[in-house]
Amino acid sequence: MIFPLNAWYAAAWSHEVGTRAVLGRTVCNQKLALWRKPDGGIAAVEDACWHRRLPLSMGHVDGESVVCRYHGLAFDGTGRCTRMPSQDRISPSAKVRAYPAVEKYRLVWVWPGDPAKADEARVPDLHWNSDPAWEGDGATLFAKCDYRLLIDNLMDLTHETFVHATSIGHKAIAETAPSTTHDDRTVTVTRWMLDIDAPPFWRTQLQKPGNVDRWQIIRFEAPCTIVLDVGVALAGTGAPQGDRSQGVNGYVLNTITPETATSCHYFWAFARNYSLHEQRLTHELREGVSGIFGEDEHVLEAQQRAIDEHPGYRFYNLNIDAGAMWARRLIDKMIEREKRVIPLRPAA
Amino acid sequence: MIFPLNAWYAAAWSHEVGTRAVLGRTVCNQKLALWRKPDGGIAAVEDACWHRRLPLSMGHVDGESVVCRYHGLAFDGTGRCTRMPSQDRISPSAKVRAYPAVEKYRLVWVWPGDPAKADEARVPDLHWNSDPAWEGDGATLFAKCDYRLLIDNLMDLTHETFVHATSIGHKAIAETAPSTTHDDRTVTVTRWMLDIDAPPFWRTQLQKPGNVDRWQIIRFEAPCTIVLDVGVALAGTGAPQGDRSQGVNGYVLNTITPETATSCHYFWAFARNYSLHEQRLTHELREGVSGIFGEDEHVLEAQQRAIDEHPGYRFYNLNIDAGAMWARRLIDKMIEREKRVIPLRPAA
Amino acid sequence: MIFPLNAWYAAAWSHEVGTRAVLGRTVCNQKLALWRKPDGGIAAVEDACWHRRLPLSMGHVDGESVVCRYHGLAFDGTGRCTRMPSQDRISPSAKVRAYPAVEKYRLVWVWPGDPAKADEARVPDLHWNSDPAWEGDGATLFAKCDYRLLIDNLMDLTHETFVHATSIGHKAIAETAPSTTHDDRTVTVTRWMLDIDAPPFWRTQLQKPGNVDRWQIIRFEAPCTIVLDVGVALAGTGAPQGDRSQGVNGYVLNTITPETATSCHYFWAFARNYSLHEQRLTHELREGVSGIFGEDEHVLEAQQRAIDEHPGYRFYNLNIDAGAMWARRLIDKMIEREKRVIPLRPAA
Repeated sequence: MIFPLNAWYAAAWSHEVGTRAVLGRTVCNQKLALWRKPDGGIAAVEDACWHRRLPLSMGHVDGESVVCRYHGLAFDGTGRCTRMPSQDRISPSAKVRAYPAVEKYRLVWVWPGDPAKADEARVPDLHWNSDPAWEGDGATLFAKCDYRLLIDNLMDLTHETFVHATSIGHKAIAETAPSTTHDDRTVTVTRWMLDIDAPPFWRTQLQKPGNVDRWQIIRFEAPCTIVLDVGVALAGTGAPQGDRSQGVNGYVLNTITPETATSCHYFWAFARNYSLHEQRLTHELREGVSGIFGEDEHVLEAQQRAIDEHPGYRFYNLNIDAGAMWARRLIDKMIEREKRVIPLRPAA
Repeated sequence: MIFPLNAWYAAAWSHEVGTRAVLGRTVCNQKLALWRKPDGGIAAVEDACWHRRLPLSMGHVDGESVVCRYHGLAFDGTGRCTRMPSQDRISPSAKVRAYPAVEKYRLVWVWPGDPAKADEARVPDLHWNSDPAWEGDGATLFAKCDYRLLIDNLMDLTHETFVHATSIGHKAIAETAPSTTHDDRTVTVTRWMLDIDAPPFWRTQLQKPGNVDRWQIIRFEAPCTIVLDVGVALAGTGAPQGDRSQGVNGYVLNTITPETATSCHYFWAFARNYSLHEQRLTHELREGVSGIFGEDEHVLEAQQRAIDEHPGYRFYNLNIDAGAMWARRLIDKMIEREKRVIPLRPAA
Repeated sequence: MIFPLNAWYAAAWSHEVGTRAVLGRTVCNQKLALWRKPDGGIAAVEDACWHRRLPLSMGHVDGESVVCRYHGLAFDGTGRCTRMPSQDRISPSAKVRAYPAVEKYRLVWVWPGDPAKADEARVPDLHWNSDPAWEGDGATLFAKCDYRLLIDNLMDLTHETFVHATSIGHKAIAETAPSTTHDDRTVTVTRWMLDIDAPPFWRTQLQKPGNVDRWQIIRFEAPCTIVLDVGVALAGTGAPQGDRSQGVNGYVLNTITPETATSCHYFWAFARNYSLHEQRLTHELREGVSGIFGEDEHVLEAQQRAIDEHPGYRFYNLNIDAGAMWARRLIDKMIEREKRVIPLRPAA
């Protein structure tokens, strides 16, 4: 097992879950059928009819329930069968598994583990996505790799110099050692690059000439959410001390949901607190970041194939990997805790 | 093993087997090369040259024999090698397995089991295909699913309401319980829906307004042939009592040949006894039924994928599944009988 | 193991290995990154970065070294790491495996086995490729089959009659028994067809009417190089006795490098000693031979699929297979010798 189950995972953007079609999505090896109930709430059940296992996501929504496309069996959001063809009596054993689901920060989150432990307060903080002080947009990238390769990637931005040489890369990144701190749930990697030339992406955002102070503050929240606080300000105007007024600031909001052991859904958005109402800029940023993340995907999928060919291989680590190593340690601890709990909670 | 071997299976339509090209087809996991001999008879041998195992279906027919494309070895319809390159003496051990093959009802049938048991009288009855009182046409559908999923599908037409909602579906089907009878070789499921509105497909065939009595009489012949006697007549004109003169009647002729455990060749035709010489109608019906069966294929392949993901899963059954359950029981008995025979007939 | 490791294998044509991009190629199940050093020499190292295993072939060349695309680690042609990001001290354990590599006869050869045994004198003789007395061109064919199927194919040209019926095939080939000789490293199969009609390909080359004497002299050099000395001369002008002046002569130069157990790189060229400066003829020959080898590829890949379906199957052999059987025996002996050596040379 390479992911904890007792956690909220993003399954979809809010706009993907509607009241008519059913969305099928796999989270932590579990296939889910998702739809929106008449009261606006989200329903999430096992994506397989009790009768013949046809995916319920091939069916349609009728009021509270999903209707199977093959024989018309209907199941409500609690997973109970509410209709069977050609018979009045519905077997009480006819049900499918239901999953806790909540909607927050424009994303739909599901909890694949023990429902009794599902606590809405533990949804990862991506408030920038729904905060009117911030403007932005995002997308989903479906990557054919272990979700932890994406976490490694985001916890060490040294790779920007080599993978994204033409956009956000800069030799200053590889040359500046970051500092890393952590607690029992988060890891923070901070890198300040002072008085440097701005890379093309940030130069365009800043719209001013002159050297900059550039920051990359990476905050990981276990098991799979990473918020990047990134930006540049004119050099020497006090950004490192907290005054970012002479700069531009963006948050790259990332949450990566394991689909299987070797594939994941990567939900990301780029939020900014400047030029809030410029729709064109929002669009340009979305396209630009998409292109950059496409470069990452290309590299990570190649890395995954190399891992698949040498299953037992242990990676060597460099100094730059400190943040990723701490992130993986927190993930491992969550998995370890779940293992210890199992003997105390036998299945009903 | 999920299919009996001592049975006739349709391998091809008659027109697919010619005197020049060789047809390769897999029946019950056995690869066959089929061609037509100068006397019009069908030859069927193992599709692998004795020498280097190149598929003989890549070769060509020369008189009685198939000629391998690689080195020109030739084999006649009994599987005996009749030519070798660069040598006069043909090793008497050089032969490939031959299969009993007959042509009947516009189909070519092969017997993958014990040749000594192959009895032409046991070819399933699909006489409508070659009876001048009936007109029709068909096609082959290659479905990536266990052939029994297609049998389940055809033995319970409740699914028409949900899978074929826009053509032949009708809520009356799901609302009317059918009756089921069987003997040791066949299962019959009969459903009469009296005084109902005709669904779009049948309304077009009937070409008259007014409510109808609709029938669906499904006859399964083990292991894999299903004849559907279907039609509508104006309500109250005596169809249930045997007078179909005020209606239209079609036979959907289906025989499903396992290719592997998870794929099959589905040969079907739609035969009618009205508007016999309207070629346009024949064409329209063929296209219409093709479209309907394409909807089934989509559902059944999704069901197969779900089964593949949960290999040990046992399906739950509803009342509507009675016909399919009996059909599977007859198939299982055929397989069971073959198992018991094996100790008495050791291989030569 | 179906191939020896202590042998030179062609990995690429010379022109495929440059000083900027890195070429990734798999030889005997080993993934290699190849590039050209500033002095013109060839570097070949394991195609996986020491740090995260990203293929180095995704990176670029910088002077002597290949630079990894992910984090910028650099490795020279000896496999030693020469640069790490964000740290001055380079761990001395950071290295990737380097392979002996030489360039000869317009091909780049690598030695996947024990580097201490790599001896340039053992590069197979394909001197026609770089001899000014011969003119020609070639290509690479990537075939999804065991490399030995290609050797079987080239060691017995009987197949031309059936596989290449429209170009170089002739019934005389299948009707004329060849003679076969061998030593401990080579096998030679000689076939002379006297006073026959020329097949279309050779008729075009000869540009004269009249019957011909045709020769096919096949020389195998273990483990995987085959030179075909082929041609026709006007019948009775002394070609069998050594006077080829009234004919045309070509050498088909073949070296087949196993990629995996079921795929190979097939490097071939056609060299001629007539009409040396006719570029159009060179082009035509290249296209013509490509078409012929495409027919072989089609057959061999089908044969490989048949083998995959019956893993334990042992082929039957005919008289025509004598050359191929000797070739396989020499290959097997090379593999056997390597096995015996292993206990005497434990890995460091």
